[in-house]
Amino acid sequence: MQGQPNQLVLRKLGIDTQQEYIVFMRSDSSVCVSEGITSLMRVQISCRGKTIVATVNAVTGNILGPGEASLSNRAFEILGASDGDTIRVSHLSALDSMSLVRAKIYGRRLEQEHYDIIIQDIVHGYYSGVHLSAFIAGCVASKLDRGEVLGLTRAMLNAGQRMTWPGIVADKHCVGGIPGNRTTPIVVSIVAENGILIPKTSSRAITSPAGTADTMEVMAPVNLSLPEIRRVVEKFGGCIAWGGSAKLSPADDIFIRVERALDIDSESQMIASVLSKKAAVGATHVVLDIPVGETAKVRSEAEAKRLSDLFEDIGAAIGLTVQTVITDGSQPVGRGIGPALEARDVLCVLHNANDAPHDLKSKSILIAGQILEQCGKAIQGQGEEMALETLTSGRALSRFMNICEAQGGFREPRKAQFQHDIVSDRSGRITSVNNRKIARLAKLVGAPADPCAGIEFLAPAGTRISRGDLLFTLHADSRGQLEYALDYYARQEDFLQMSEGAP
Amino acid sequence: MQGQPNQLVLRKLGIDTQQEYIVFMRSDSSVCVSEGITSLMRVQISCRGKTIVATVNAVTGNILGPGEASLSNRAFEILGASDGDTIRVSHLSALDSMSLVRAKIYGRRLEQEHYDIIIQDIVHGYYSGVHLSAFIAGCVASKLDRGEVLGLTRAMLNAGQRMTWPGIVADKHCVGGIPGNRTTPIVVSIVAENGILIPKTSSRAITSPAGTADTMEVMAPVNLSLPEIRRVVEKFGGCIAWGGSAKLSPADDIFIRVERALDIDSESQMIASVLSKKAAVGATHVVLDIPVGETAKVRSEAEAKRLSDLFEDIGAAIGLTVQTVITDGSQPVGRGIGPALEARDVLCVLHNANDAPHDLKSKSILIAGQILEQCGKAIQGQGEEMALETLTSGRALSRFMNICEAQGGFREPRKAQFQHDIVSDRSGRITSVNNRKIARLAKLVGAPADPCAGIEFLAPAGTRISRGDLLFTLHADSRGQLEYALDYYARQEDFLQMSEGAP
Repeated sequence: MQGQPNQLVLRKLGIDTQQEYIVFMRSDSSVCVSEGITSLMRVQISCRGKTIVATVNAVTGNILGPGEASLSNRAFEILGASDGDTIRVSHLSALDSMSLVRAKIYGRRLEQEHYDIIIQDIVHGYYSGVHLSAFIAGCVASKLDRGEVLGLTRAMLNAGQRMTWPGIVADKHCVGGIPGNRTTPIVVSIVAENGILIPKTSSRAITSPAGTADTMEVMAPVNLSLPEIRRVVEKFGGCIAWGGSAKLSPADDIFIRVERALDIDSESQMIASVLSKKAAVGATHVVLDIPVGETAKVRSEAEAKRLSDLFEDIGAAIGLTVQTVITDGSQPVGRGIGPALEARDVLCVLHNANDAPHDLKSKSILIAGQILEQCGKAIQGQGEEMALETLTSGRALSRFMNICEAQGGFREPRKAQFQHDIVSDRSGRITSVNNRKIARLAKLVGAPADPCAGIEFLAPAGTRISRGDLLFTLHADSRGQLEYALDYYARQEDFLQMSEGAP
Repeated sequence: MQGQPNQLVLRKLGIDTQQEYIVFMRSDSSVCVSEGITSLMRVQISCRGKTIVATVNAVTGNILGPGEASLSNRAFEILGASDGDTIRVSHLSALDSMSLVRAKIYGRRLEQEHYDIIIQDIVHGYYSGVHLSAFIAGCVASKLDRGEVLGLTRAMLNAGQRMTWPGIVADKHCVGGIPGNRTTPIVVSIVAENGILIPKTSSRAITSPAGTADTMEVMAPVNLSLPEIRRVVEKFGGCIAWGGSAKLSPADDIFIRVERALDIDSESQMIASVLSKKAAVGATHVVLDIPVGETAKVRSEAEAKRLSDLFEDIGAAIGLTVQTVITDGSQPVGRGIGPALEARDVLCVLHNANDAPHDLKSKSILIAGQILEQCGKAIQGQGEEMALETLTSGRALSRFMNICEAQGGFREPRKAQFQHDIVSDRSGRITSVNNRKIARLAKLVGAPADPCAGIEFLAPAGTRISRGDLLFTLHADSRGQLEYALDYYARQEDFLQMSEGAP
């Protein structure tokens, strides 16, 4: 027997498989032969004192020499490994927690300790996409009860780090489903300017054309570590960071990529994800924005009430005061849909520009005012006035610029390479807008992967339109995707409802 | 713009990712840049008039030159492509059928046409593992009703080819869960020898240490095309082929690999899978073996009855006469568990060896007899006698050898490189055997991927054991897996129940 049959020397091939770690090993290597390791098996890779789980791609050609192995780019990064380093390959011990996932799929109720075990395995990277997908589908299908949602929330909170701050800490969240609804940078600037701590972490898009983190990233770096978040917030009272890089709810970042592939957004997963992240960032008070509309995520006041009760209830169980604002979710907020186009809207509002989207401005004022009241900064009924003053005085803008600088420097949103105008083929008044189809179109044109891609939407409900008037403009950075989106648009009927002729 | 920005020239890197097709493309290639294609996207690859769907791995190093691309080994094979061929890369159109999968996860009932759409997309290779896993979990969680199981069965049948034969055509199936239960090669030989057509296709293992196709492959090639199956059956009345290579129910082969990763074996999927394959192979009469036992897949007579009714009902709806035999599923059948070890048992029975496992022999006689009666070859009550005579006369053996020759040539099972005996640490009588743990151990030792790996099981219930007596022998082809299995065995308590001392 050779000395160390399960050790191999790294050689970088430069293969990018993002978060799916791959190890490339010759199928005739001693480790594959003696350990019975074959392609697609999941194995443990140790290097420099760190261990990850990776999927095996067997190499049958000569791109690796005998005794050599390679890793996908991200796996090199996460291990801090370089060419010439030695890795140790070992069997992954049996994934016992999958029996709990199977039980969940078969409809069994799981307890707190079960969720802890599952989430720990997920955070350790033991689950492949196939395993994660089964867990998510099982949770959605079996409709977790209150106790299970709490169990999942606590498990997600326990699996990551947790920040603490002195005194009251504000946070906000919007349940989403409304394209372009990008109030966060404005709200954070107003709240922080009024002396309330608001260490805001946001998601990237799950099934939408942009998440707040995607939009903010157009204007400033958002990949902040926990110490960086602390530094920015201690200096300027607030930040707008991507939650993923802060690793405050590491399980959530793993779920998100599978939910995106499935285009599924489960309610219990959402509650657990949101509240675990709020608690992890150290928030004490949370304002929750639930937009209601026919094509929004929440479609009725009754559903909004039920969801609001669940959030308040689970929030209280983990020590958070949650307060809900139900808002108009009938159509996109602002004009831009897609990271850079939404960032432009945000900057217009902060600059008090004449043509700033009025709906985005008033919604930001509403939410900021609510937070100022909830945290005892403004007396009941006067929060919005205080928020508006902070905005119109220009103090919100300079606070925002300070935060951007502290996060690594402000940058102006760029414009996409290609634009394509969509004009109306008839006259009338816009009566309703399909949020889902608008969002789909923005995704097909490249958002959020291409930050400048998206839609500039100019025909909100109520607008009078003449034949030939501009309805919206598609922005794209690749011709292929622009054509692909136009092809989809041509096959659809009901993006907008219009009453023809006179009202 | 270049002439053909979405065309690239193939260069083989020799990377084996089995059935998961990968396309390797430089991230700075014109096709990635102009079409907005990034790592992990799923794209269509066309070459030599064929099209597959593959996952993108972006290459950032120099293993590919400008204008070059590569494919995983299996993708090269399936396209019939070679070095220097040109591929065309295009966006995969939106996966509309995932909205049906989401509806299923949310508990909505799906209709025949919905299952047809989903299964068509799956057979075209449009679903990744994440999508397949969500569909399987959704079907399990929402407990398909009779109409849905029929819808799924018909959809799976419609998605593949279908054979036709003159007159009565027999088939058999065992719902499994019993290690070593390898009656098929014996039954097929007896039935075919008595003049009834039995074009048998079998599965590879899903969650067990060996499927019938895995066991048969140790003795003869099983990867037969439809014309090859027809040739063998027309010559010798029967065959034992792998259903996967015949592509009779192509969706099933795709489900199996995800079910294996999840270690889940859904009832509705099983019924749809079994009956669609029976109908596709042209069977008219099916004998269904349901082993019942505490650690078998079916644990009570009542459950067996319910399952049997479902099989008979759905079978009748697609034109199959299904008859059930409920058998003893309390412990492994035969001595061997794992492809080669089970093949040895089969050969012992066919050779009428003195030490042939009696349980395997009598069970094969029972099922063959039932088929002879069901197909009108033997009068009621005399099927087993006819089957026994066919076996003891040696005619079953020579029929089996003829079939093996016609399938490509008989080969003797090989013995594994490493053996390890497990002896009893106490005396007593074996009272029960845990099928699930025995199967798990056989898998850990390498079965079915290593065909010679497995367990030789020598302590069935009822056996009197003295301290130091052999209970079973582990067979392995890799030292790593043998040690791994021994480690698992050391941590377990209840492989066997034993009553201590005198009975």
